[in-house]
Amino acid sequence: MAVYTQVDEEALGKLLSNYDIGAPISFKGIAEGVENSNYLLETERGRFILTLYEKRVHEADLPFFLGLLEHLAARGLPCPLPVKQKNGSAIAKLARRPAAIVTFLEGMSVSRGTADHTRAVGGALADLHRLGKDYSLRRDNAMGLAGWRKLAHDIGARADKIAPGLGGIVGTEIDYLEERWPKDLPRGVIHADLFPDNIFFLRDKLSGIIDFYFACNDLLALDLVIALNAWCFERKGELNVTKARAMVSGYQARRPLTPGEIEALPILARGAALRFLLTRTFDWLEQPVGALVKPKDPREYLQKLQFHQTAKSAKDYGLDV
Amino acid sequence: MAVYTQVDEEALGKLLSNYDIGAPISFKGIAEGVENSNYLLETERGRFILTLYEKRVHEADLPFFLGLLEHLAARGLPCPLPVKQKNGSAIAKLARRPAAIVTFLEGMSVSRGTADHTRAVGGALADLHRLGKDYSLRRDNAMGLAGWRKLAHDIGARADKIAPGLGGIVGTEIDYLEERWPKDLPRGVIHADLFPDNIFFLRDKLSGIIDFYFACNDLLALDLVIALNAWCFERKGELNVTKARAMVSGYQARRPLTPGEIEALPILARGAALRFLLTRTFDWLEQPVGALVKPKDPREYLQKLQFHQTAKSAKDYGLDV
Repeated sequence: MAVYTQVDEEALGKLLSNYDIGAPISFKGIAEGVENSNYLLETERGRFILTLYEKRVHEADLPFFLGLLEHLAARGLPCPLPVKQKNGSAIAKLARRPAAIVTFLEGMSVSRGTADHTRAVGGALADLHRLGKDYSLRRDNAMGLAGWRKLAHDIGARADKIAPGLGGIVGTEIDYLEERWPKDLPRGVIHADLFPDNIFFLRDKLSGIIDFYFACNDLLALDLVIALNAWCFERKGELNVTKARAMVSGYQARRPLTPGEIEALPILARGAALRFLLTRTFDWLEQPVGALVKPKDPREYLQKLQFHQTAKSAKDYGLDV
Repeated sequence: MAVYTQVDEEALGKLLSNYDIGAPISFKGIAEGVENSNYLLETERGRFILTLYEKRVHEADLPFFLGLLEHLAARGLPCPLPVKQKNGSAIAKLARRPAAIVTFLEGMSVSRGTADHTRAVGGALADLHRLGKDYSLRRDNAMGLAGWRKLAHDIGARADKIAPGLGGIVGTEIDYLEERWPKDLPRGVIHADLFPDNIFFLRDKLSGIIDFYFACNDLLALDLVIALNAWCFERKGELNVTKARAMVSGYQARRPLTPGEIEALPILARGAALRFLLTRTFDWLEQPVGALVKPKDPREYLQKLQFHQTAKSAKDYGLDV
């Protein structure tokens, strides 16, 4: 979350001359998003978010991300709609970076959702999976099983700086997951990062899903347990079964899980926890000295992993099996 | 420019229960302001800026700053209007910090203004000086002559890391200014930081003046040369006389300078340049390693100081004397 690239009114005016959204009325850098520069832009035609893609988002992936938003918004998902330039493309260039303008969504994220919130999140995620079904572009999950092995290698012995024995725990876990990771479950487009920051609510109704920059093709049920990990744990690492049950039943009301998916929930949840344990560990170790943005504590995801390691079946997540 | 303190929806809801501005619709941290945390807040009643005051703004000064905004906005200056809580006070508490909600202003800052812009800035500054005349609270200028001596002392020999001989230049300049600094010129409330960031334009009309957190009582003409230094120099340190003349004549159209003020412009401009040379030097030397916010280059103000040292009279700023 930050504004890394400064855009002045001259550069903005030049950019907007390629669009049909009128002259700017207000323009403010906002603290939102992963590693991009984001501006809240108001013009004579409405409000928008202007994003400049910094190094973590690859330009080659932008047609997938922006095309997906267009696909989903056209089908009624409350996600930002990319605005096209007069030349028909949604991908622009600003300050030597790829850039895009998308519609603004009202609403606010909740930092600690209730079971009503998690039920709504489950429902919206099922909608995303259903509506994404016929999306034609594909993108591999760089943060899938193969990516974890590589990340663990890059972290190496430094893992033990985060928690004693973490390197060994991670290595054993990857071996375990590689051997048993399910292959025949329903696949499709997943959001892959459905944290509370990325969901807006307005008057208790889910009003927005944002930040699709980890979206990819992978197991649909993996997306559900990523969200479950992000929304349904208490501060000390206990699963809130009420929230978990609400999320899964909200999901199933719109897209019933297959028996294979239900059976695989514990192992998928282990993988989902490991993924964020690894990336947070990496970001923690690589943080620049004195940086303003504090990285998130990886140990939160070690606790979640350890919870899932003890789970025997989907019953442990509150499901009636 | 940053968001130093995170505010979640729970804390925001609790804060808003003290106001009469309805429920929140949108809430985003924005990159604006000096050293405070700022949020753009939309509620059912409109748009606002929520500011949390971090350590650089002293709580004891808030009644002066917020009272001044109220005083000036009531008299028609396009500045933010503080919103009062149900208890009548505009000063709230949030995340253990003093906080305030003010009205949102449309418009955008221009990074390189034209002579039309500087004329408008001069006019608005004269308005501010006229309208501030009967404001009852007072605040000394911590960044005045006495403050410069102290700052130069705190910087000490490290000044020469910025430019060779800078320590000596600064010492000699402070001696010079202390001996000749004018005492009998018109005084009143000044903005004291009227940089392009702090002025908004909408459809080429000046639509907003923000960031009053250096406002204080001092020589009115000092405020004009602070703005002149900030708006009327070219990148390589040459004064743009057209912009300077436009700014001063825009000012004089609403508040004519006295002969004493006109005569004092060169020395005031030296002091104004020295003030930012010193604070930028200090911030440059004190920057945390790896910080995301790059401090501004102090040498820009050394060039400006050196220009003013060669000025003989107000003629050198384009005035017909």
